[in-house]
Amino acid sequence: MEFLSKYSTALETQLAQTVHVKEPIHLYEPINYIVSLGGKRLRPILTLMTCDFFNADFNKAMNAALAVELFHNFSLIHDDIMDKAPLRRGKETVHEKWDINAGILSGDAMLILAYQLFECYEPKLFRALAELFSKTALEVCEGQQYDVDFESREDVSIAEYIHMINCKTAVLLGAAMKMGAIVAESSEKCCTQIYEFGRNLGIAFQLQDDYLDAFGDSDSFGKQIGGDIISNKKTLLYITALTLSNSAEAETLRNLYSISPKDTSEKIETVKRIFDSSGAAAAIQNEIENYTKKAYTCLEHVQISSEKKDILRSFGNWLMQRTV
Amino acid sequence: MEFLSKYSTALETQLAQTVHVKEPIHLYEPINYIVSLGGKRLRPILTLMTCDFFNADFNKAMNAALAVELFHNFSLIHDDIMDKAPLRRGKETVHEKWDINAGILSGDAMLILAYQLFECYEPKLFRALAELFSKTALEVCEGQQYDVDFESREDVSIAEYIHMINCKTAVLLGAAMKMGAIVAESSEKCCTQIYEFGRNLGIAFQLQDDYLDAFGDSDSFGKQIGGDIISNKKTLLYITALTLSNSAEAETLRNLYSISPKDTSEKIETVKRIFDSSGAAAAIQNEIENYTKKAYTCLEHVQISSEKKDILRSFGNWLMQRTV
Repeated sequence: MEFLSKYSTALETQLAQTVHVKEPIHLYEPINYIVSLGGKRLRPILTLMTCDFFNADFNKAMNAALAVELFHNFSLIHDDIMDKAPLRRGKETVHEKWDINAGILSGDAMLILAYQLFECYEPKLFRALAELFSKTALEVCEGQQYDVDFESREDVSIAEYIHMINCKTAVLLGAAMKMGAIVAESSEKCCTQIYEFGRNLGIAFQLQDDYLDAFGDSDSFGKQIGGDIISNKKTLLYITALTLSNSAEAETLRNLYSISPKDTSEKIETVKRIFDSSGAAAAIQNEIENYTKKAYTCLEHVQISSEKKDILRSFGNWLMQRTV
Repeated sequence: MEFLSKYSTALETQLAQTVHVKEPIHLYEPINYIVSLGGKRLRPILTLMTCDFFNADFNKAMNAALAVELFHNFSLIHDDIMDKAPLRRGKETVHEKWDINAGILSGDAMLILAYQLFECYEPKLFRALAELFSKTALEVCEGQQYDVDFESREDVSIAEYIHMINCKTAVLLGAAMKMGAIVAESSEKCCTQIYEFGRNLGIAFQLQDDYLDAFGDSDSFGKQIGGDIISNKKTLLYITALTLSNSAEAETLRNLYSISPKDTSEKIETVKRIFDSSGAAAAIQNEIENYTKKAYTCLEHVQISSEKKDILRSFGNWLMQRTV
């Protein structure tokens, strides 16, 4: 996706200028650190790209894009504390490098800094952006809470699981795009449809991530294959497999998800076989296709040229196939 | 202060309607819990009172007042985690009753909910309020960071200490009042002066709190006398005493602040004697008077009737003497 590089170059420049260490340094150093760890910058690029595609100078959406990226990094810092994660992008997490207190407080400051970035917009735009941001941020918190709750529940339904990833991941992708459309002062209808495009693609993207964790190619996926299985994470594959499998298979699956063997390869193989034989793998692939299609249907109602729609569809395909 | 009851009655009603438990309940229960613990509600009452005194219906400032109170409670939840505090208003803190993760996440949600409360205002007011709120919230984070940093420093100056309590406590009192003035659509000058009134009174108030911790009357102060001394907290009394005392006294003070004896009464008595003999106690009382006077000078420039100024001064006196 060569055309994305103009957004990402501009973004990195602005990000470096926005995030810098000042007094009290123990508050601002962790912020600078997490942002410097990099990442795909998918969300802010979506904001810039959408603004561009809706016929406004993408630089006008820069601060909204930066806000989205700061918010995303805020949620990573706090989620990493909650998940007791030692590593983020291959480096120490903030609470490991400093401590939990530094993680809490610098995360809080990042959330506030994100809101401040909207202050460059005139009152009507400011309000529209901040409202969307608050609604989305609260949904992300709710999604994180559902994710925590589901760990200790055995009866999570498929609908509940999809609601969780919708909140935790998908709404931010939708909001990132909608912010670009808001800054470009697009119609209400266009704003809604591009939000739904991003949100549905976000659900498909997250389901794909769950799927690839079990069935992906370790070289291109970029993470350890079977990581979710090793950590007994109840993804949609697991939930669906329990629903679709016969009682013997379900029993095996439940047992395997209650143990943490040293040699994980046998566990991973057995779980994957049940994911497959139960029809769960096919069901998830079907869901991924459904949500991708839903996203593309939303795109049809957006008032931009068919060339731009083609590019957005290619972008969607690229996103979905990035890690197979 | 009988006239405050109309604000506090209205506030409690609205607070109960604003904060309620919904799904996911583990996210919203801690929010409901911390708000139900009560407290003086000083900050939101300042918002309502200021709006009223600036000739607008105080109910118009209700959502701004609620935002201030939610923000204050958010900071209590996160600060209690950082301070490992077991109790808040005599009840279990959120992270004790649930866990640290619940404290982090429900605190985050409260901060976002606070921003959402401004959404009832038209764009210009919304922006003015949200900007002041963000600026203040970031200063509160910085103040908390300075407070943490000072624990492990031996060379904190008086100016640095006052800057810390200015950020951690005083700016929120100033902002609470200014929000009332903003909602009442007062002039820029009035908004600034009432902010400075609240901020200076806030510094005086916090210094008073430090002073009373050592020299207050245990019945009316409502906290254990000497609590800061027992926990070796380097308040302005301690910092000033180190500066003013002779080297023998300073040595004694440093030694006493490096131990945690079981029987605390002797330690408290010795420390208080040095606070007194070094002139630190008198110096703090002098600072308290200075900041209170500064506050009252700001009041003179505010364009409200002299009767209202009298009431605000009485309010200030009441606040400062509440716990002697």
